[in-house]
Amino acid sequence: MIITCEKDDLVNALSIAEKALPSKTIIPMLNNIIIETVDDATHLKSTDTEISIDTVLNGNIIDQGSVALNGRLFIDIARSLPKEQVTIKVDDHNEASIKCGLSEISIKGMGTVDFPQLPVISNGMSFNISSTIFRDMIRQTAFSIAPPDDNREVLTGELLKFENDEIMLVSVDGYRISIRYEEISEIPDRQFEAVIPGKALMELMRILPPTQENLNIKIDDKRAAFTINGTVMTAQLLNSKFINYEDILLPELSETKTTITVNRADLLSAAERAMLVAKEGKSSLIKLSISEHGMVLTSNADIGKVHEDIPIDINGSAIEIAFNGRYLTDPLKVVDDEQVLMKFNSDVSPCIIEPVDGKSFLYLVLPVRMG
Amino acid sequence: MIITCEKDDLVNALSIAEKALPSKTIIPMLNNIIIETVDDATHLKSTDTEISIDTVLNGNIIDQGSVALNGRLFIDIARSLPKEQVTIKVDDHNEASIKCGLSEISIKGMGTVDFPQLPVISNGMSFNISSTIFRDMIRQTAFSIAPPDDNREVLTGELLKFENDEIMLVSVDGYRISIRYEEISEIPDRQFEAVIPGKALMELMRILPPTQENLNIKIDDKRAAFTINGTVMTAQLLNSKFINYEDILLPELSETKTTITVNRADLLSAAERAMLVAKEGKSSLIKLSISEHGMVLTSNADIGKVHEDIPIDINGSAIEIAFNGRYLTDPLKVVDDEQVLMKFNSDVSPCIIEPVDGKSFLYLVLPVRMG
Repeated sequence: MIITCEKDDLVNALSIAEKALPSKTIIPMLNNIIIETVDDATHLKSTDTEISIDTVLNGNIIDQGSVALNGRLFIDIARSLPKEQVTIKVDDHNEASIKCGLSEISIKGMGTVDFPQLPVISNGMSFNISSTIFRDMIRQTAFSIAPPDDNREVLTGELLKFENDEIMLVSVDGYRISIRYEEISEIPDRQFEAVIPGKALMELMRILPPTQENLNIKIDDKRAAFTINGTVMTAQLLNSKFINYEDILLPELSETKTTITVNRADLLSAAERAMLVAKEGKSSLIKLSISEHGMVLTSNADIGKVHEDIPIDINGSAIEIAFNGRYLTDPLKVVDDEQVLMKFNSDVSPCIIEPVDGKSFLYLVLPVRMG
Repeated sequence: MIITCEKDDLVNALSIAEKALPSKTIIPMLNNIIIETVDDATHLKSTDTEISIDTVLNGNIIDQGSVALNGRLFIDIARSLPKEQVTIKVDDHNEASIKCGLSEISIKGMGTVDFPQLPVISNGMSFNISSTIFRDMIRQTAFSIAPPDDNREVLTGELLKFENDEIMLVSVDGYRISIRYEEISEIPDRQFEAVIPGKALMELMRILPPTQENLNIKIDDKRAAFTINGTVMTAQLLNSKFINYEDILLPELSETKTTITVNRADLLSAAERAMLVAKEGKSSLIKLSISEHGMVLTSNADIGKVHEDIPIDINGSAIEIAFNGRYLTDPLKVVDDEQVLMKFNSDVSPCIIEPVDGKSFLYLVLPVRMG
C-alpha cells in the first residue's frame, strides 16, 4: 500500500478514528487503527466492539492495500509531524514507513484479517438532521444520563424517539428527567424508539464538526449509525425498554400551582454562589422562597450563609421548596435561553423547567424534602 | 471595617494572595487571607510560613478594621459575584457581609491577632529589573530545578547571583545545568548570591503581570522580597551554599571539538517524534550522529524506529552521542531563539547549548553512555 495525504488531513481523520479506540481491552488487535484502501478511498477504521468508526482519509492512493497500526502511537506520530505532505508506504511484512519532510518513521504493523468486520446497517429507518442541532440535543440532555456503573443499564443511555413529527432525546437518572424536542422537516418512514449508549453520544458529539452539516441517522433493531462527511459511527443499542418516564411526567404537567419566569443566568449564578457556602457544610441544599415579592434563594452552613434576591414574574401561589443545587444548576448551564419558565406544584413535587416560548426542552427536577 | 471595591479588583488581589495559601497546613489560621486597612490602603495578606504575600486591594475604605477569612472560600465567592461594586462589612464578631448586586453572603471570620506577622526586609541589597525579563529568566531555567523531595535541598532552589554587572539565575538537577544571564543597567551596591526556593519562583512567575513593569528584588541573609505594583512577595532563602557548578562547567567550556548551529524548532520536533517511538520501548534514548553531512537523529524500539535528517552548520570533527530525549528537549522548549549553538567534546562529555549571538543562556546536558 502507498498513500499520500496532507499532515492536517491525516490528523483530522485519526482524531475521529481515535474516538472508538478502547480505553482498555483484552483483545490487543482492537488497539489498532486500520488503514485500508477501497477503490479510490482510503478508510481509517476502529472499534471497541460497542462503538465502531469508519472514516475516509482525504488523500491519494498510489498502491492499494491495508494495514493495522497501533492507534495511539500512530496518532501521536501524526500530530508531531511537520505541516507537509505525508507518504505512508506499507511493505509485505506490514511494516509501515511514514515519510514527511526530513522525517522517516517506521512502525511494525499487523495484517488486517483478524480485525473484526465493522457492522453495517442495511435495513432500518433513516432520517436527516442538522449536525449542530443534534449536537445541542446531546449537550442539553447528557448531564442526566445515569453513570456507566448504574445497575439500571438502560438509564446509562438516552432514548431517541420519533413521535408526531418530532425527534426527542430523553435522559433519566432517578432524580431528574431531561427532554429535548426538535421538529424535523423530513419525516422518518415509521415511528421508532431506540436507546443509544451515553458513551456513544458523547463520542459522537466530539466528532460532529463545528459547522452545520447534514447528519444522517439510521437505526435498526440492534444498532444506530450516524453518517456525516464521509464518517460513519455505529453504536450498539441498549436492548432493554426505556423507563416509562411519561408516567412520572404527565401527572406533574397536569397540575401546576405556581409558574414563574426568571432570568436563567441570574438564577444560575445565584445558585452557584449558594452552593459554594452549602458545600462548606458538606451539603448542596439550596432553598427557594417564591412569592409575589420575588424569589429569595438561600443556603446555610456553619461558616456562613447566602441570601440572593432574584426578580421573577409569578403566576399562582407562593411556595417554599428546596433542591440539591446541582440538580437545579445542571439544566440552567446547558440551556441557551435568556429567560426560562419554572413550574411548581408543591414542596414535595418536582419542578418543571421549560422555555418561555415553544417546547424545545423540558427538565423535571425532584426537590429535597425539608424538615 | 467597611470597604468597597469593584468585583474584578477583588478577584485580582485575591488571586495574588491565593499563591501563598498553604496546600495543607497543621496551623488552621494559615488557611485564612487577612483583609486589613492600614491608613488609606486595604491590604490582603497570606502566608504558608515559607512564602508570604502582602498585596494592596484597589478600593475605598469607609471604616478601618481587619478580619481573617477562609482564603479559598473567599476567592471562590469573589469569582462567582456579579461584575458590580462589592461592599465588605465586618461586625464586632468578625462576621463579614459581602454585598454585591442582589447578593448578600455572610462568612464567619476570625480576628487577626493570631495571624503571624509577615516578614519585612529592612536592610539588604536591592536592585530593579524588568518583570518580563525576570519571568523569562525563571521560565527558561525552572525545568532543571531538582524536585521538592530531592535530598540535596539546595538543588530544590535556584541560585540568584550578581557578578560582573550581570544577574544570573542557575538551576542544577544532577543531569544538567541551566543558566540565564542578564545585564542590568542599575548595578546592585554589592556582590551577592542567594538560593531561592523553586516553589517561590514558580509562584512569583504566576503573579508577575503580563505587561512589563518594574520588579524590585531585595535580599538579606534570610529572605528575598519581590515588590511589584503594590504587591510584596517574601520568600525564605535556602540556607545551604549552592553546588559549585562552575567546577563542572569550566573544564567543559575550555574544550570543544565540535560546534554546530541548528534550527531549534526543527531539532525539538525531530527529538519529540523520536521520543514517541523510544517511549514504546520504555526508553527515552535518542542518538545524534553529527558529521559534515548533517545531523541524523534516531531512536529505536521493538515497534519501530525514527530517522530524522536535520540540516546543520558544523565546525570541527564528526561525533556520535546519545541523550535522554527529555534532557535535550527541555531547554529547546523554553528558548525563544530561532537557531542555537551546540558544543560537543566527546560522546561521554556534556553538550553545551548556547545562543548564536551573545550569552543570555547556557545549558549543560549530560549524555547517556552507549554500549
